[in-house]
Amino acid sequence: VGVAEVLPLVAERLGAIRGEESERGEPVYRRLVAALRRSIEDGALPLGARLPSERRLSSALGLSRTTVQTAYRELEALGYVESRRGSGTYVCGRPEWPSQPRASAIPKHTFARRAKAAGNTFLLDLMHAASTLHRYAFETGMPDPRLMPVRAFHAIIEDLFSQRSAEWVSYSPTQGVPQLRQALTHTLLPLRGLHGVRPEEVLITTGSLQGLDLVSKLFLEPGDTVLVEEPSFPGATQIFRSFGAELVGVPVDEEGLVVDHLQEVLARVKPKLLYVQPTLQNPTGAVLSARRRARLLDVASRWRTPIVEDDAYGLLLGQDAPPALKARDEEGLVIYLGTVSKILSPGLRVGYLVADEGLVRALSHVKQLTDLHTSTVSQFLVEGWLTTADVRGHLRTCQRVYGERLRLALDCLRRHPLIEPYIEPQGGIYVFGRILTGIQAARLRVESAERGVIFAPGDAFAVAGGLQDCLRLCVGASDLAALRVGLGRLLRLVEELQTPA
Amino acid sequence: VGVAEVLPLVAERLGAIRGEESERGEPVYRRLVAALRRSIEDGALPLGARLPSERRLSSALGLSRTTVQTAYRELEALGYVESRRGSGTYVCGRPEWPSQPRASAIPKHTFARRAKAAGNTFLLDLMHAASTLHRYAFETGMPDPRLMPVRAFHAIIEDLFSQRSAEWVSYSPTQGVPQLRQALTHTLLPLRGLHGVRPEEVLITTGSLQGLDLVSKLFLEPGDTVLVEEPSFPGATQIFRSFGAELVGVPVDEEGLVVDHLQEVLARVKPKLLYVQPTLQNPTGAVLSARRRARLLDVASRWRTPIVEDDAYGLLLGQDAPPALKARDEEGLVIYLGTVSKILSPGLRVGYLVADEGLVRALSHVKQLTDLHTSTVSQFLVEGWLTTADVRGHLRTCQRVYGERLRLALDCLRRHPLIEPYIEPQGGIYVFGRILTGIQAARLRVESAERGVIFAPGDAFAVAGGLQDCLRLCVGASDLAALRVGLGRLLRLVEELQTPA
Repeated sequence: VGVAEVLPLVAERLGAIRGEESERGEPVYRRLVAALRRSIEDGALPLGARLPSERRLSSALGLSRTTVQTAYRELEALGYVESRRGSGTYVCGRPEWPSQPRASAIPKHTFARRAKAAGNTFLLDLMHAASTLHRYAFETGMPDPRLMPVRAFHAIIEDLFSQRSAEWVSYSPTQGVPQLRQALTHTLLPLRGLHGVRPEEVLITTGSLQGLDLVSKLFLEPGDTVLVEEPSFPGATQIFRSFGAELVGVPVDEEGLVVDHLQEVLARVKPKLLYVQPTLQNPTGAVLSARRRARLLDVASRWRTPIVEDDAYGLLLGQDAPPALKARDEEGLVIYLGTVSKILSPGLRVGYLVADEGLVRALSHVKQLTDLHTSTVSQFLVEGWLTTADVRGHLRTCQRVYGERLRLALDCLRRHPLIEPYIEPQGGIYVFGRILTGIQAARLRVESAERGVIFAPGDAFAVAGGLQDCLRLCVGASDLAALRVGLGRLLRLVEELQTPA
Repeated sequence: VGVAEVLPLVAERLGAIRGEESERGEPVYRRLVAALRRSIEDGALPLGARLPSERRLSSALGLSRTTVQTAYRELEALGYVESRRGSGTYVCGRPEWPSQPRASAIPKHTFARRAKAAGNTFLLDLMHAASTLHRYAFETGMPDPRLMPVRAFHAIIEDLFSQRSAEWVSYSPTQGVPQLRQALTHTLLPLRGLHGVRPEEVLITTGSLQGLDLVSKLFLEPGDTVLVEEPSFPGATQIFRSFGAELVGVPVDEEGLVVDHLQEVLARVKPKLLYVQPTLQNPTGAVLSARRRARLLDVASRWRTPIVEDDAYGLLLGQDAPPALKARDEEGLVIYLGTVSKILSPGLRVGYLVADEGLVRALSHVKQLTDLHTSTVSQFLVEGWLTTADVRGHLRTCQRVYGERLRLALDCLRRHPLIEPYIEPQGGIYVFGRILTGIQAARLRVESAERGVIFAPGDAFAVAGGLQDCLRLCVGASDLAALRVGLGRLLRLVEELQTPA
């Protein structure tokens, strides 16, 4: 290809690029680079072709010599041309990019200490299990997809399209969509005894798990102590540990957290936070009695202990559930976490936090640096449901369905006494049980997975270690027939494994 | 009310509760509490009524004395009854809850040090501004809602309803919905020069901002140094600071990050990370030249400096944009962050991170403790759009529309030289400008807000302080007419404020 042929082509392309509306504002050298790149890419300037000299091109195109020089260097850096000393600049082809990144040169020892606490993949495995097909999936704390009001969501989405144009896919306030915060104060919060909450006292979180991340970010320094129930929800304990907290477990019995024990602990240690699930505790299903609730608030008040009340399961207990701790929190020591994950949809990732306005503001400041705001479409779906659905009726259905399943599971375990409930769950979707034959849950799980039955091993819920002979069965996502067959298989396996074949 | 009348009623209610399917598994005392509560709440047991003695009720209902005693204590704790010594137990009414939480007893001095860094409300204010009506809103980095493909989303949602039942509102894997990760490797990533990326090397994040949170959680200890561009995106600098990092700024000119300066800095300090926006830097609009990209990778390789490449705006630059740094990252030193916020929808909160598989796994571990996973419906909306839309055509439209607006804004500033671009932006949606009259942006903002014109003050983007006389104008969300009027008002105001009235 002679230089003479190339010049008009480049000139024409440069003119075309100048004319493209979107390119204005770009430096001239970048337009020249673009013109030459296109000519190389479409073969007009083939492999091996020599580019015009810088001087020749600059005079032909009416550009400064520096502009052409910069453009040639840029093309070289991009890998399109190479300059040969004393000879000129030649097309050397289209650049090749590495087809896939190699292993990282970033060494693991540069990770922060907190990364170790995140090494436990319990939650990750649960999410994986939730989206994998298992015939008898008792592992994840998953509500029944058949109870998710997909048809109602459809109608809500139709409304959003017709009424809110692009609002539902646009940025929204960090604290949460105002209509949703308002709707929560009228619907779900009063059902848990939280009357008269103002929208300013509500923060929307990306699932209640994010509430724990935000609270930890606001409060925890490495070395701080956090008191938790023993056993406790591993998501919470792992998050606290990842912020460098030391955990101290307080036992749970049929009446929930043993407040006498808590008092003894508080005489010894000064915790930054106390984390509790007073209503249908995960994994035990314990419900803190009203008597103990009153005493817990007294004790917390005496020692000025902030309480994080995780009420993820409270709405599954029904009308006779004791009101949330927060409902009697006259001193503002309780940070309340709720979620729609167990009653409506876990995949929308919509939770809510209730605290006094000052704390909500401080936590919003933390949230702006965490994910800016929770998915707007998720928030509008929840708001639409809360304001149009028969919320109480839906909750009654959930309570009835899960009640039947829990009863069947407990009946199964009673009839074949190989796994004994740790305590008798008072509702919800979990049975936490101890395997009476001495077999470890980890071993049982390997064998049972082969028969399509999966569950969560008990040691994941232990705070001070142990519970290797325990397991958590979630009855939420399996119908009665699946429960009967799956639990039957599991119990037969426990039996087989105790008697040598 | 005589005891004789009450007994049959309570017995009947207890029987009814026993019969309610959902209540099985509950201890008997709780059923008795429920029966008595209902009788008090509906007035059958009115205020002042005396309950049967414990002995009498236990023999009448065939329950143990302890069960009745526990139930009475529970009712007392709930506030329904009071026991008078030697006289019996009396109904004292329905309990009253505090109607709203008081100010918190949790003192601010118990907040972690990192909470201070979150005290700057820049992002929070942006989100607030984005969801408030301003006639001339040049503040938030907001794409034009008219360019969001709402109609396409509608069709995708219809498909989700008919084909995926409840999957799109259910739990999904922490690393991201596999179909979305797959779609990204075929669509957006190759457009940025990232060919042959495998889905295992992609992590879905709740907006690219969460990518910064996750990377900080994985790497940063208090006292670590992070290098950033000066000026830089305040979201990033605030997040790094909230993890206790010290920031060192490296200047940006027309060719992007000044790599010579970077080299000098690296000879003095050993940073944990280098954070850059090589393509359409926020706020300046600078594009790192290919020459400097190659040198930057050489320098990073020599000093083993991990690079966080934030490519939030790369897809707005058009086909002649230099490929992402990550495209030439042969050593795996680059962690790439992308997002659909600027091209599709910011409210879905869907970003993506590309790194080698080991790092993606480590970051997934961190994400499980942050929000479990990104909204499933948001992910399916993006996946649906990527696999059905004319992605390139849509991007060309965005580039054309924003190009026109940017050009108009720059023309305005050229014609009334009161605000001068910090550097000439090469595309995108921002003009970062210096006010030449000496007036501070903070003061100008107060006055201009009264005339309906808002913008982001420049000092928010400063790393080492200064830039009080600068401002960032976002042209993304305003049409040409609004830009013309809004900028005209702003420039007139700058003029007025320099000449005393």
